[in-house]
Amino acid sequence: MIVMKFQLNLGKILKRAANYFGEKTIVSYESLERKEITYREFYSRVLALIGYLKALGVKRGSRVGVFAWNNLAHLILYFAVPCSEAVLHPVNLRYSKEQMLYTINHAEDEVLFVKKEFLPLVAEIKSELQRVRQILPLDAVFTNFASFAENFDQISEDLPAKLCYTTATTGTPKGVMYSHRDLYLQSMALCMTDTFGISEKDRILLMVPMFHVNSWGIPYAAAMVGATMVLPGENFKGQFLAKIIFEEKVSLAAGVPTVFQEILKAAQSENIDLGSLRTVLVGGAPLTREIIEGFARYGVEVRQVYGLTETAPFVASNYRKSTLVHLTEEEKKKQQLKIGLPAPGVEVRVVGKDGKDVPWDGKSIGELWLKGPWIAREYYNDEKHTREAFVDGWFRTFDLVKIDELGYIEFCDREKDVIKSGGEWISTVAVEKYLLSHPDVKEAAVVGLPHPLWQERPVAFVTLWEQARVSEEELLNYLRGKLLPYWIPDRILFLRELPHNSVGKVAKKLLREKYHDLLLKDTNEKGEV
Amino acid sequence: MIVMKFQLNLGKILKRAANYFGEKTIVSYESLERKEITYREFYSRVLALIGYLKALGVKRGSRVGVFAWNNLAHLILYFAVPCSEAVLHPVNLRYSKEQMLYTINHAEDEVLFVKKEFLPLVAEIKSELQRVRQILPLDAVFTNFASFAENFDQISEDLPAKLCYTTATTGTPKGVMYSHRDLYLQSMALCMTDTFGISEKDRILLMVPMFHVNSWGIPYAAAMVGATMVLPGENFKGQFLAKIIFEEKVSLAAGVPTVFQEILKAAQSENIDLGSLRTVLVGGAPLTREIIEGFARYGVEVRQVYGLTETAPFVASNYRKSTLVHLTEEEKKKQQLKIGLPAPGVEVRVVGKDGKDVPWDGKSIGELWLKGPWIAREYYNDEKHTREAFVDGWFRTFDLVKIDELGYIEFCDREKDVIKSGGEWISTVAVEKYLLSHPDVKEAAVVGLPHPLWQERPVAFVTLWEQARVSEEELLNYLRGKLLPYWIPDRILFLRELPHNSVGKVAKKLLREKYHDLLLKDTNEKGEV
Repeated sequence: MIVMKFQLNLGKILKRAANYFGEKTIVSYESLERKEITYREFYSRVLALIGYLKALGVKRGSRVGVFAWNNLAHLILYFAVPCSEAVLHPVNLRYSKEQMLYTINHAEDEVLFVKKEFLPLVAEIKSELQRVRQILPLDAVFTNFASFAENFDQISEDLPAKLCYTTATTGTPKGVMYSHRDLYLQSMALCMTDTFGISEKDRILLMVPMFHVNSWGIPYAAAMVGATMVLPGENFKGQFLAKIIFEEKVSLAAGVPTVFQEILKAAQSENIDLGSLRTVLVGGAPLTREIIEGFARYGVEVRQVYGLTETAPFVASNYRKSTLVHLTEEEKKKQQLKIGLPAPGVEVRVVGKDGKDVPWDGKSIGELWLKGPWIAREYYNDEKHTREAFVDGWFRTFDLVKIDELGYIEFCDREKDVIKSGGEWISTVAVEKYLLSHPDVKEAAVVGLPHPLWQERPVAFVTLWEQARVSEEELLNYLRGKLLPYWIPDRILFLRELPHNSVGKVAKKLLREKYHDLLLKDTNEKGEV
Repeated sequence: MIVMKFQLNLGKILKRAANYFGEKTIVSYESLERKEITYREFYSRVLALIGYLKALGVKRGSRVGVFAWNNLAHLILYFAVPCSEAVLHPVNLRYSKEQMLYTINHAEDEVLFVKKEFLPLVAEIKSELQRVRQILPLDAVFTNFASFAENFDQISEDLPAKLCYTTATTGTPKGVMYSHRDLYLQSMALCMTDTFGISEKDRILLMVPMFHVNSWGIPYAAAMVGATMVLPGENFKGQFLAKIIFEEKVSLAAGVPTVFQEILKAAQSENIDLGSLRTVLVGGAPLTREIIEGFARYGVEVRQVYGLTETAPFVASNYRKSTLVHLTEEEKKKQQLKIGLPAPGVEVRVVGKDGKDVPWDGKSIGELWLKGPWIAREYYNDEKHTREAFVDGWFRTFDLVKIDELGYIEFCDREKDVIKSGGEWISTVAVEKYLLSHPDVKEAAVVGLPHPLWQERPVAFVTLWEQARVSEEELLNYLRGKLLPYWIPDRILFLRELPHNSVGKVAKKLLREKYHDLLLKDTNEKGEV
């Protein structure tokens, strides 16, 4: 689709990276081997791959699937497929075989690029793949081919570019389609000083798996301003990442709290300096005080960020307004634990049970509804789920939040995880937060289980750090005084590991199912009603 | 025009300022009296004015003219008129009466808001105003009226929002129309770390007259992120501005070199600390070493910026890439004197005389052509000028530049100001730069005057700082050794002041006309050739 008006597309980002930052580099670790290429070389690789894709019969609107971790080949596909007017579908490698099969068929992928170790899996499901006509090893991305540069930067901004899937804790994956314009505008937003502040000077460690919602949009933003990218390959362990941060002089890293906790542990035990970082962006689950304090030791700023697959994902980030300069250190930390202020362009409603907006008073809780330049207006080809989650052009997050007078959003709970005990709400997030503040606790998940008297009561499931030996009673004591009495869990169970879903969140539904009768039995055994 | 898709319009910026930065303020000086209002109050004022405009019969596409300096009333109009689906036309107060009349009629203004002191002038031209049906004092902006908030943030992004005029050094003003989308996207770009880096924490002194090309886009960018704005009213004198920078703790200021020179002089002579500034943005004319060094004394970063009315105006800004960290201090300064790197989205060609792109080698000179999200594709309602300056979707700047291997653009000359002497080009900019580096020289303009032997030879016109007493011969000696011998002007004339056009640039055409025979006479008198 060739148009005269200036189009906000990914080809423009690619060309800018090559023209103005051709000497800057991208570092990629593959099975621990380090490779480094310039943006100029990267550009040539992308154009060659566009040529190859055309030769493979990839056309406007074709879907191309990829099985890959955070490596150079994946990054080349991130640009080459959309710049061929086709759509890239990064398959979530943490999905079950059935979920992968479902998404590949639902996306109508025609070509698959598959990292070697996933070829057997793909062979297993091959007979059920409905539209796939070509399965190529991931290295085919590097095929030397006549480069195709015709109008790749003139693509209509409204053309779809990427397709990602999301699951709730369980359930059928739902697809979200992003246009070139969505991703271009999000890139601009991520480079603004008050958001991620991505700059040419940054060396960014790409810790968010690239099959997760555009790797938070960071690869496109980084290319737009010529920042250096560091790709860890398949290595997401804290020890490796801490080492890389030091060796590559990483200035910016984004990821989920668990990964940062592991990085801090590794840095401490191996005496690794994390001081090259200017900022860490923590999202996907609530930020903890331990992370703030852990990074403070290296003089590193921590910003909480918030987003979802449906939101491309940038919704909000927490930076301290100048009007908060008078807060005490303790108040500042409290403020820092909020989600933050919405990104420029993102609009927010907080909707109460009566369907009306609740006041922004820092107290009233409601469901977060969103609208914005890059926020989805539907699930891809999925009327049923679209009807559930999109209302009058708004996307319902099903997250419960409150907003204070200054506009800061505070996460309270997932609507479906909230516990209602004897008519009172209990925030599982708050209980988890205090559990995580105990030095022995590694992970914590609180769920509501059926209770004969109180309908539901909270039960906590925790994993401990190695060699930690805290008892249930000690942990319960630790919580007493910190929480409202009725928020104290009835039981704390120690597990070797928590069940996780494909995006690394605790699968609370599984816990609820498995331990459904726990409190019913308990009370029976103890003879209490 | 009500649409469902997310529209990038100024209403969105206004609403964000009120929702998330309602407690932040705007400071406005009016005849030296200081006023301060919050963004929340500002928002109410804008909505009330929208109501009033509707009552006045202002409709979608109506043009509203304004005669005002940088004050609160003007800022309210900046938002209220576009948010009424109408178009704001800020009349250039430095235009001649004839030029004002021409632009008001060409813009088809229906309503004029006029600052008191311009009412007599408007009365003079009233009988010739073709479409104006209402002339209101500027204070009518503050009329208390029922606020109108209906869908002001749902306006189509392609709707025109602002209309500014530009003149070359002389000639008929040409109009440039900006859409909501143009101004929204430029605002995002100005908040990116690597450009102006405008942030909530900034306190911005709005030194660029608001009738000049959207005041460089700064008011919209500032509102988008909730930065504090400081409006100096009609006071653009160095002494006042230096004082304001200190008193208002200004962190960011943008303007032309002359104004910054005056600020530095005043700060020095009155011992005013400019250290609250983080960055000054210098544009409109080439940056000088004196400004860089002057601000370095206060620890303030200087960034050259470049733009034109046709470009809304943000084209390029000069920030130091991390790959330049190894440069010597002297090399860094040299690099800093370049225009810089194009803004994200802005595309560049450098076109040689043969119509082909010249290499980006830091040596080859060509004309700068531009394209971009907010760059004009035509002059408003002016086919003749459009044909001259717009080619295949590119805007021809008529500025001669070179680009180095790293993508930095270096300004060489205005195409029409270039001197061709005996077949060789002489850069007037380079000669002016060296003249300005002399401590006694305040302003310098070099033009080519007809010469019997060399077709054209350079002649310099300078103004000196008070009490400076340098002679023509001393100045010529100062230049010798610094410039190629044939670049040394044939004469240096001292003027009490240089003629300026309406945007503050030296009216070289006037100098060329007035002194047309200077070298012809000179040589005759001296009996040479």
